[in-house]
Amino acid sequence: MVLRVAVAGASGYAGGELLRLLLSHPEVEIGALTAGGNAGSKLGEHHPNLVPLADRVLADTSVAELSGHDVVFLALPHGHSAAIAAELGDTVVIDCGADHRLNDAADWQRWYGGEHSGTWPYGIPELPRAREQLLGANRIAVPGCFPTVSSLAMVPALAAGLVAPEAVVVAMTGTSGAGRALKPHLLSAEVMGSASVYGVGGAHRHTPELIQNFSAAAGEPVQVSFTPVLAPMARGILATCSAPLRGEVDADIARKTYLDAYAGEPFVHVLPDGAWPQTSATLGANTVHLQVTVDADAGRLVAVGAEDNLTKGTAGGAVQCMNFALGLPETTGLPTTGVAP
Amino acid sequence: MVLRVAVAGASGYAGGELLRLLLSHPEVEIGALTAGGNAGSKLGEHHPNLVPLADRVLADTSVAELSGHDVVFLALPHGHSAAIAAELGDTVVIDCGADHRLNDAADWQRWYGGEHSGTWPYGIPELPRAREQLLGANRIAVPGCFPTVSSLAMVPALAAGLVAPEAVVVAMTGTSGAGRALKPHLLSAEVMGSASVYGVGGAHRHTPELIQNFSAAAGEPVQVSFTPVLAPMARGILATCSAPLRGEVDADIARKTYLDAYAGEPFVHVLPDGAWPQTSATLGANTVHLQVTVDADAGRLVAVGAEDNLTKGTAGGAVQCMNFALGLPETTGLPTTGVAP
Amino acid sequence: MVLRVAVAGASGYAGGELLRLLLSHPEVEIGALTAGGNAGSKLGEHHPNLVPLADRVLADTSVAELSGHDVVFLALPHGHSAAIAAELGDTVVIDCGADHRLNDAADWQRWYGGEHSGTWPYGIPELPRAREQLLGANRIAVPGCFPTVSSLAMVPALAAGLVAPEAVVVAMTGTSGAGRALKPHLLSAEVMGSASVYGVGGAHRHTPELIQNFSAAAGEPVQVSFTPVLAPMARGILATCSAPLRGEVDADIARKTYLDAYAGEPFVHVLPDGAWPQTSATLGANTVHLQVTVDADAGRLVAVGAEDNLTKGTAGGAVQCMNFALGLPETTGLPTTGVAP
Amino acid sequence: MVLRVAVAGASGYAGGELLRLLLSHPEVEIGALTAGGNAGSKLGEHHPNLVPLADRVLADTSVAELSGHDVVFLALPHGHSAAIAAELGDTVVIDCGADHRLNDAADWQRWYGGEHSGTWPYGIPELPRAREQLLGANRIAVPGCFPTVSSLAMVPALAAGLVAPEAVVVAMTGTSGAGRALKPHLLSAEVMGSASVYGVGGAHRHTPELIQNFSAAAGEPVQVSFTPVLAPMARGILATCSAPLRGEVDADIARKTYLDAYAGEPFVHVLPDGAWPQTSATLGANTVHLQVTVDADAGRLVAVGAEDNLTKGTAGGAVQCMNFALGLPETTGLPTTGVAP
Repeated sequence: MVLRVAVAGASGYAGGELLRLLLSHPEVEIGALTAGGNAGSKLGEHHPNLVPLADRVLADTSVAELSGHDVVFLALPHGHSAAIAAELGDTVVIDCGADHRLNDAADWQRWYGGEHSGTWPYGIPELPRAREQLLGANRIAVPGCFPTVSSLAMVPALAAGLVAPEAVVVAMTGTSGAGRALKPHLLSAEVMGSASVYGVGGAHRHTPELIQNFSAAAGEPVQVSFTPVLAPMARGILATCSAPLRGEVDADIARKTYLDAYAGEPFVHVLPDGAWPQTSATLGANTVHLQVTVDADAGRLVAVGAEDNLTKGTAGGAVQCMNFALGLPETTGLPTTGVAP
Repeated sequence: MVLRVAVAGASGYAGGELLRLLLSHPEVEIGALTAGGNAGSKLGEHHPNLVPLADRVLADTSVAELSGHDVVFLALPHGHSAAIAAELGDTVVIDCGADHRLNDAADWQRWYGGEHSGTWPYGIPELPRAREQLLGANRIAVPGCFPTVSSLAMVPALAAGLVAPEAVVVAMTGTSGAGRALKPHLLSAEVMGSASVYGVGGAHRHTPELIQNFSAAAGEPVQVSFTPVLAPMARGILATCSAPLRGEVDADIARKTYLDAYAGEPFVHVLPDGAWPQTSATLGANTVHLQVTVDADAGRLVAVGAEDNLTKGTAGGAVQCMNFALGLPETTGLPTTGVAP
Repeated sequence: MVLRVAVAGASGYAGGELLRLLLSHPEVEIGALTAGGNAGSKLGEHHPNLVPLADRVLADTSVAELSGHDVVFLALPHGHSAAIAAELGDTVVIDCGADHRLNDAADWQRWYGGEHSGTWPYGIPELPRAREQLLGANRIAVPGCFPTVSSLAMVPALAAGLVAPEAVVVAMTGTSGAGRALKPHLLSAEVMGSASVYGVGGAHRHTPELIQNFSAAAGEPVQVSFTPVLAPMARGILATCSAPLRGEVDADIARKTYLDAYAGEPFVHVLPDGAWPQTSATLGANTVHLQVTVDADAGRLVAVGAEDNLTKGTAGGAVQCMNFALGLPETTGLPTTGVAP
Repeated sequence: MVLRVAVAGASGYAGGELLRLLLSHPEVEIGALTAGGNAGSKLGEHHPNLVPLADRVLADTSVAELSGHDVVFLALPHGHSAAIAAELGDTVVIDCGADHRLNDAADWQRWYGGEHSGTWPYGIPELPRAREQLLGANRIAVPGCFPTVSSLAMVPALAAGLVAPEAVVVAMTGTSGAGRALKPHLLSAEVMGSASVYGVGGAHRHTPELIQNFSAAAGEPVQVSFTPVLAPMARGILATCSAPLRGEVDADIARKTYLDAYAGEPFVHVLPDGAWPQTSATLGANTVHLQVTVDADAGRLVAVGAEDNLTKGTAGGAVQCMNFALGLPETTGLPTTGVAP
């Protein structure tokens, strides 16, 4: 199988990571590359790492450019994907944006504003029943980078009823997660040597997505307190998640629950007993590293997950979904070993 | 007043920070500088920033060397301060180690092992009733770096009864907090570009100190789930703290409670509404920056604090206590503006 | 003496560093704070570290606002200082910009374009004969951050005739040296974990200033190959300088030349034999750390200097010049110990 | 072809990078993994990124363990490879250490001490005449990380006679280049936020290797002034190289010389006119990015190269040599796109 693949939003960080992965994907031929404000410039100006595509000139993002491909990845600001997808017929459209992640139109209205453009199959194959939706799908919503790792970290405990439906998630992220927009607080001199918080008190747009995933797993509404932290690193998310224990749960039970939940998963690794995740071990890889324990004194289960926000958290997860939806081995073309140290 | 001051453990990070601050303290004359394994070497080999003391040769840490000073700062591994302090009579002894922080001998036994050497007045002047203990004290226990900022972040809410006694603290720290011991996970190639967790599930030794401070403020036992995160930066702690709301509390009530609690405090700054702490703003300064809000959906109060772990979190806090105990203006010689960006 | 001091360009990095230093200067009272596009906003929005000034509202940069002060610091884009200074009469005007650094109008025309607005006394007091020009001056040109440390590193060798007039300077800089403008290559995700060059081949505007200083010291024209390197750190310059040896020079002669050149200088430290500069030792301090040696095989003298680009390289050097020009002890209010680690 | 490959020194950084690359090499089966002090431990303790090999227990480095493979990579401290290689017969032995890089026994004696164990074919295929030596070789000396990028940056100019035989190389390196030994100056708190120099004045052991390569290209002895700089990043080398121009050379001639020299090379990229190397673009890839220009005022050619010290600078270069020596396509299994941002 050779898939002809287009990437819209190729000059941004998600677009660049998609192309890095697609360049080494054995079943992919790279087709149209489009951009918004950067249309007309060469890809190499934006992604000096992507040498084989350095001279490709970015086209304007339009249906005309994106038509005629087997797969189209959209890495656009939210609100742009529905109109494009509507014109792409049977093409597999994989949206790295937020537009089709939320089930509830009222949630969309509250968090993003405007009319909801509908819900697509949700791209975390490792979640319960997710592959049923994804197999053969021609529309896929790639999850947010925080929800990917946080859901993989909390869902087994919630699904198994080990914890009460009140989770606290504090997640450190590298700054590539904020994209390439020129904002003062993302200047290197502001970020290096410093940690800061933002979106505190439930104000981050990934909150409803966390609630949706956690509640689906628990079978009841879950309250989620989510705090993102900007860390001085380019890539990586470390999500520290906890919830009150429900009943008699010790660390062994918790670990066994997680090992069972992810048995056979090629990208989710429950670390050996005593080892804890570090983001560098996942850098550039489509993996999530997890560990879980129980704090008996505090009465809480604590689970920690690490991922590369651009790989498993965005572009790698997107390629994994493409592979699965189209019947390729899910691991095709996806690195499983991080670039470390 | 000119105080003659000695520093034991001068070659470590806490010792170096003490000397940086003492060098610009107008009422201090620097006396003996001692070390363990580094005795006999020059201070400049360990702290190239401390140019005025570069040629000072470190003596062996001993009662003989430390006697005859007005103030002795101890920056030693735990377990060493009691024997030294016992021989120093009326000298003001300020212990940056853990030995005299915990009230409960059983806690000491559980977390550190061996016999407890007693409790000293606890060095966070901004906590309720702390100054009563510190005024005129000649033995002072400097708190841990995590408990300093976390306690200042949570105590007002606990003391005012705004929250239930179940706190979650996730705190990012720069690696200087781990000291200067040569450990593989502290090598720069391991740390840079990566975030990692340690001491998860209530295993970090600062946990009982957090419980002690939080419970004292709440007037009832508080459960504390504490997770420290190693961040790729040299200095700084960002503590993200939350607890379930108790009763009708909104963001305004929360902020007013904190503004009132720290009115007139020269080193604790509740930031303007909408601004959130970043560690760089406190770098090298004896300050804690705080903000608080309410997450109505999650039903939690969220408070975040930033400090420099070596300054307000250790050496600066120690000098502040010295100033206060000896009747000097509390701010003498202590920077209040961070080195940023 | 209490000096009333204004800062124009207070929202930028140089302006912020000036204020950090002036806040702890015992003879200074801070007057007007002005800005360009940021006029009308509060200083605390731009410099969260400067808590004591957080609520000061920035005025528009204008002669009216800046009049009536003893000293005015200008931290403006180049081309703006001459017109302002012309209206400030006897006020001491200290320009952190480039406008009055170059002696030669043709150099100005070539490197900056437009008409040269004249040369002011040049603010590196430690250079030969510099203090003659600075004493009592009411107009002072603060040097560029690269020329400060590079000149202090190379001038003793050039002045003593130890080297031929062909110098190579490669200098790593933290990104605060590029200021606060929103440029894609300064985004944190681009900078962290990466080193890059710019202005290669003699294209950086500090080149003519280096040539001017080196040539003045050598008493003959010096060719200078200058390459700036962007390093993943917020502050600091490490300048590696070399030139071909002239005659019989060994490392001892080189070191003695430098020790003699800077004997008695409070801010320039020739390190102990065998020790080499690191930028962290100068962080936030008004110091330059130097070392020099001879590479007999390569036939070159190699000198390395470290500074904080915002402190000794800009704002600290500016305050030092103010002190000296006005007859205060040169070290008044200026830190000599870096914040390290 | 399936090659059975062993790695000696698997717990270090070079060993880990070899395994990361070999895991995705389609013609390789990973055999013995050995270590020195870490023998008996699991690989996953040292390289949490290498999940597929996490449970492999490290054997003692010995001829017995390493025998019976098609290829053996040695990533050992210098002085250990000759004795092992002597017992490995026809096995292809690729030494990542320094033992067999230098042609001259006296150089070896001066820089490393002890008896020289002989010279092996030198593993930079892109250098003139290098492939003649490497084709079919069963002993290969992997070059030092600094010499790889610096030689690729300077050799075209030297070989074409564009410059006089007096080069200056200043190279920033990430700290993984120093290996995993526990040294105080490599602690993260020392490195982050700081740049420092070491081995100044021709004291670094890569100096004779640079002289050897530069002189071979120039056809005459070349003097090399080499200064390594430790930069706050985990990986990457940025080498800034220059030499005095010889005759009439402008930037176009220089660029054409480099473009011609590397035409058809899959791993060496002369960047588009006006673009300059940044190390992040090569992270984890087996590439060198180069740019060259002329500084007419200074009379020097300036060439800058970037690489990942662990990939093209060590392990990737080693795998490239294996591929070539054994007749595989040189690019087999080697990434050409860096992980950026």
